Amino acid sequence: MESGVSDLHTSGIEFFYNPKSIAVVGASPDRQKPSGRPLAALQDRGFAGKLFAINPRYQEIAGTPCYPTILDVPDDVEMAIISIPAAFVLETLEQCVAKGVKVAVIFSAGFSEIGPEGEALQRRMTELARASGLRILGPNSFGLIRVSNAVMASFAHIVDLEPVRPGTLGFVTQSGAFGAMTYADATEAGVGFSSFTSVGNEADTEFSDFVGYLLDDPETHVIGGYLEGAEDGLKLRRVAEGALERRKPILIMKVGRTGAGARAASSHTGSLAGDDQIYDAFFRQTGIVRIQSVPELTAFCVLHRGGRSFRGKRVAILSGSGGHGVVLADRCESLGLSVPEITGATREKLEQCLPHFGSARNPIDLTAQGGVDRSMLGNCLRALASDDGIDVILAHVFFVEQDGTKRAEELVEIYRSTDKAIVLTCHSRIRSGVEADCIAMLKDAGIPVLTDGLQAAQAVAQLAWYQEKAGAASADDGERALPVLPPVEGRGEGVGELLRAGEPLTEFHSKRILGSYGIPVTREALASSAEMAVTLARQLGYPVALKVQSAQILHKTEADGIRLDLGSDDEVRTAYDELLANAERFAPGAELQGVLVQEMLGEGVEVIIGTTRDPVFGQVIMFGLGGIFVEALKDVSFRIAPLSRRDAREMIEEIRGYPVLQGIRGREPADVDAIVDAILRVSRLVEDHRDEIEELDINPLRVFPTGAKALDALVATRRNGPRSG
Amino acid sequence: MESGVSDLHTSGIEFFYNPKSIAVVGASPDRQKPSGRPLAALQDRGFAGKLFAINPRYQEIAGTPCYPTILDVPDDVEMAIISIPAAFVLETLEQCVAKGVKVAVIFSAGFSEIGPEGEALQRRMTELARASGLRILGPNSFGLIRVSNAVMASFAHIVDLEPVRPGTLGFVTQSGAFGAMTYADATEAGVGFSSFTSVGNEADTEFSDFVGYLLDDPETHVIGGYLEGAEDGLKLRRVAEGALERRKPILIMKVGRTGAGARAASSHTGSLAGDDQIYDAFFRQTGIVRIQSVPELTAFCVLHRGGRSFRGKRVAILSGSGGHGVVLADRCESLGLSVPEITGATREKLEQCLPHFGSARNPIDLTAQGGVDRSMLGNCLRALASDDGIDVILAHVFFVEQDGTKRAEELVEIYRSTDKAIVLTCHSRIRSGVEADCIAMLKDAGIPVLTDGLQAAQAVAQLAWYQEKAGAASADDGERALPVLPPVEGRGEGVGELLRAGEPLTEFHSKRILGSYGIPVTREALASSAEMAVTLARQLGYPVALKVQSAQILHKTEADGIRLDLGSDDEVRTAYDELLANAERFAPGAELQGVLVQEMLGEGVEVIIGTTRDPVFGQVIMFGLGGIFVEALKDVSFRIAPLSRRDAREMIEEIRGYPVLQGIRGREPADVDAIVDAILRVSRLVEDHRDEIEELDINPLRVFPTGAKALDALVATRRNGPRSG
Repeated sequence: MESGVSDLHTSGIEFFYNPKSIAVVGASPDRQKPSGRPLAALQDRGFAGKLFAINPRYQEIAGTPCYPTILDVPDDVEMAIISIPAAFVLETLEQCVAKGVKVAVIFSAGFSEIGPEGEALQRRMTELARASGLRILGPNSFGLIRVSNAVMASFAHIVDLEPVRPGTLGFVTQSGAFGAMTYADATEAGVGFSSFTSVGNEADTEFSDFVGYLLDDPETHVIGGYLEGAEDGLKLRRVAEGALERRKPILIMKVGRTGAGARAASSHTGSLAGDDQIYDAFFRQTGIVRIQSVPELTAFCVLHRGGRSFRGKRVAILSGSGGHGVVLADRCESLGLSVPEITGATREKLEQCLPHFGSARNPIDLTAQGGVDRSMLGNCLRALASDDGIDVILAHVFFVEQDGTKRAEELVEIYRSTDKAIVLTCHSRIRSGVEADCIAMLKDAGIPVLTDGLQAAQAVAQLAWYQEKAGAASADDGERALPVLPPVEGRGEGVGELLRAGEPLTEFHSKRILGSYGIPVTREALASSAEMAVTLARQLGYPVALKVQSAQILHKTEADGIRLDLGSDDEVRTAYDELLANAERFAPGAELQGVLVQEMLGEGVEVIIGTTRDPVFGQVIMFGLGGIFVEALKDVSFRIAPLSRRDAREMIEEIRGYPVLQGIRGREPADVDAIVDAILRVSRLVEDHRDEIEELDINPLRVFPTGAKALDALVATRRNGPRSG
Repeated sequence: MESGVSDLHTSGIEFFYNPKSIAVVGASPDRQKPSGRPLAALQDRGFAGKLFAINPRYQEIAGTPCYPTILDVPDDVEMAIISIPAAFVLETLEQCVAKGVKVAVIFSAGFSEIGPEGEALQRRMTELARASGLRILGPNSFGLIRVSNAVMASFAHIVDLEPVRPGTLGFVTQSGAFGAMTYADATEAGVGFSSFTSVGNEADTEFSDFVGYLLDDPETHVIGGYLEGAEDGLKLRRVAEGALERRKPILIMKVGRTGAGARAASSHTGSLAGDDQIYDAFFRQTGIVRIQSVPELTAFCVLHRGGRSFRGKRVAILSGSGGHGVVLADRCESLGLSVPEITGATREKLEQCLPHFGSARNPIDLTAQGGVDRSMLGNCLRALASDDGIDVILAHVFFVEQDGTKRAEELVEIYRSTDKAIVLTCHSRIRSGVEADCIAMLKDAGIPVLTDGLQAAQAVAQLAWYQEKAGAASADDGERALPVLPPVEGRGEGVGELLRAGEPLTEFHSKRILGSYGIPVTREALASSAEMAVTLARQLGYPVALKVQSAQILHKTEADGIRLDLGSDDEVRTAYDELLANAERFAPGAELQGVLVQEMLGEGVEVIIGTTRDPVFGQVIMFGLGGIFVEALKDVSFRIAPLSRRDAREMIEEIRGYPVLQGIRGREPADVDAIVDAILRVSRLVEDHRDEIEELDINPLRVFPTGAKALDALVATRRNGPRSG
């Protein structure tokens, strides 16, 4: 895809969530049927707008007037819900257009998911939408729910569930059935929805359009999504960046992580499944929280609802069971949180509260004595709340008959007296009536309460990561799209011409392109005779390397086309002749550009910077250490261009081999800033020429204690000019 | 610890689980108190043996006769439950001994967990137990429960829960509170316990003793454990091996994985927390399933209860939601299971059942149509059950009013018609009365039913791993303790003498030790003059290396004590003199053993084999690739000696850098068998001399396409002779 199609196409989408009138086409009086359920639900939940049924067999359905076609409705219709066989859908849509309907929700299956015939039908639907401005959700959609105004435009059983209020989770899903399960589970867990949208086959509107719309929906505080594959990565990126600016978290369950998953995803919606590593990088880059399960989503919502921001990742754990505390501490640290030892005044205060066989170190162990002396928990909480060395308190609570209410009131008072993030867990089993009342009291006061400590730890880690990311994004603001690089004189001069030559570029030409973007390359020049090579070698200074240059010989080693460490005129002459002979043997008749005479570099750490064009996300940058790290360990990281300075630094720090750059075996650290700089320049280059450059490899970039230089490079152009993703 | 103390000390333990008579010392009539609850629970649950209360303040408690001291009981007492202040416990134990009591369960806290004073008290308790034969559980224990005969010897609230029957999970815990939570959660999840044992401070009996006892307890089919640290690794290993022989799975939640966890664990029970990596290796080696959470334990129990063995790890996934199927497929593959594409006759059969927009590839997507045509699931299951390419079927089911019962009967019939492992998941929410009945029907028929698909996938992976491990163990049988190695003439000759010299061993002596165990080392000899070095070099053949040898210079590189690739007599002479001068400069007056003249080896892959003595597990073997892999990536694996051939192979394959050994960049693969052989010989060496060898390093072992040779080695002896762990 090119940048032109990446604009959010949200025009008219508001009518999905706020229609003044709804007609159900194919409405049935049987409320157990998919064609009956939305009408019944709209009635039951009290949709306040006008409601019409469309079905030639009835005059009215349970009090709602019924007409043969939508054209017969004697009033405006803003939303049509379409629940009829595929064969009749297009005709109905044409009637909708004639009627001036704004949006259509199509349950009907039998389109792109069934193969070529259905695809053709769906294409006509897309054309109709584009031509008329009618916005379509689906086909093959489970529909849509907007809780606050009772838009129950779905045939899923979830319309029958009593919604949790207030609903602040906006959920968009590429799988209707999985989405419905998520809705049911989250409702059970006490998390309310602002809206639920099953995008189906995405004939007109797509996943990112709805997420984009929800960015500015005041009812929606958190956006959840189930994604198999984005149609347009740039659009999703723009949406994610908008969400980060607004500090509205997006959590996505992205499937297709492994082989079998990816196979089924592609057969399920026919959407393009991007490479999972690239999605992972994309999420990390854009601040989308990637989740693996529904409980992760609900726990995050509960924490986020609390509204407190974490200043950092330092967690204090309070529990009446040493074992439980240790389990939580382990989990927290494995999730990247820290559980620092409590020291100083707080330690003293805790030790005054705790029995002598407890632990004030962290995790803080109240021991079973916490069940006897029930003021202990509150006292410990107060001590921790005033400790600047702690960002989040994770405490396990319970309540007993005798003084439960009093203790709950105390917790509420402590919570209100501080702005520290506090998360409580209360074991779900053996819960007495008093305990249920106490938990309700805590929840009413806005305190996040979860049942499972491990899930609480996970949610803390995710929210802490998110808040750090959002904070960094606003700090980076302005710098993100266009990182400040030292200016390069005549930047990009001649690059377009070199690229348009359209043939594979040799190392020499590739490096001229890099050089014109300010990426340091080896000093070198092309020789067209042995004597010229000698002259150049003397200018560069011995020792030098010689490398054959031909568009027909891109892998020079295979052709035995390289000679290193040549120390004299004679060695250069001999090497020159050998390289020519080898080239002729390897690729008879190959057109030689000449032989590259190149300076030899000192020792350093070798890294790779590469780029590739991803069909979903466009230009993707890769980083890794050279050699065995890439080949045997696949220890590389990705980011989507354009990159911020922070992105570049993170992708360097993220690889497992990062300690090699920090200096091991007593070596000096490598110049990481020089790598950051090179990555940013590469990002700029492939963005400037995103339709011309197919792949780029700097392999290796040799990194010194100060500076770095590209030792070899390869730029591959797109042979046939721009093509669509 | 030495091997002598590793014997299981289970004598008398049966009385904990089958006492004919119980006295509760410190019994209270208040059933809400820890001192009141066990007596009440023993009465309520119908303990059939004799019951006595001990408390000078009462004549009887709720019908149970009460005496001032245990000596006053006019009958035999096999078990004493002790719930009195720490200060009075020893005196009571002495009375128990006098009375002939077999076992004591001690709730009282105030012993080793509170510091030196408590430790002293606890030591006296240990001595009393050892001297008298009275077996003690605790102190600081939550007690013990045996469900089948209502031995409710615990003060935890869990005695009030209605037990799930039949109870087949035997649970042993080092944290009473965490254990009680586990008991409650598992009960809620429908998993029944045979017994629950909180080991407390382990003054006499310890974790492994109870696990060991449960190995031969016919009521116990699965053993679960919460472990902070084992006292005696060899004992736990023996228990684990016994469990694997009997095919009785052990699942352990081991905490202290990270820094904060480890710190708290050590302050919690004062037990020695071993390094987590070593525990991890130990669990993998001995077939213990390491779990992270209670739901993992319960899901495993549900699957194991099904009793079907998996022939392999190939899973078919059946779901009515494509999205759900993809999520499960992703999880399965990330857990090491495979989700192979269905082909051939089965594929055809599935395609006949499924709608044309479904997927028969795997995951198998019934689509929402599976909710309409409810015979589809059964037909698909039949097709998969007869496919030899599938080992486990994971199917999501639901039941509706109209035909739920009929469908459940059909599933039972299908399950009975095959011996294929089938696991069903049924979403826990929106469950109608019919659905509840159907699930009960499935469970009664012995079909494993879980609510959460992701947990089901995890349990399938764990059970498949376990079954593979158990199968391999019986295949290896006999070979495990003593892997068959080619005999070495005069094995170990002179080794004891070298080791007992007690000084740090030079490379030359270290390699003599390795060589005497059949580990190939470089050809080499010690020279005491430059001319002798020349003579030796000629005998070995040029080029050679020279290395200074002195007990005072263990890191030769630091002393500039190595010269490589010497190609002539003159070079050897010069090098010899230089090394002597360098040694004198580096360590003036150092006693030289001479200069080692060593053959130069051809190219190969360098690996490290090392050993260290772990305080818990004894001799531990480490393996890794050389250089940067170990230093920067810490890419190493561990196993506990002695190793089986399979252990050695697994530890090689387990490192991330394994592909390097398989040959990359067109290189020939390295001789992995030669590494296995070297590891086994090292294992034999450190076992034979486990009290003398503190550390051993072969760094590097250079591995060729055929064979391998130790290029450098270092053996460190234990300076002060055997010491306790």
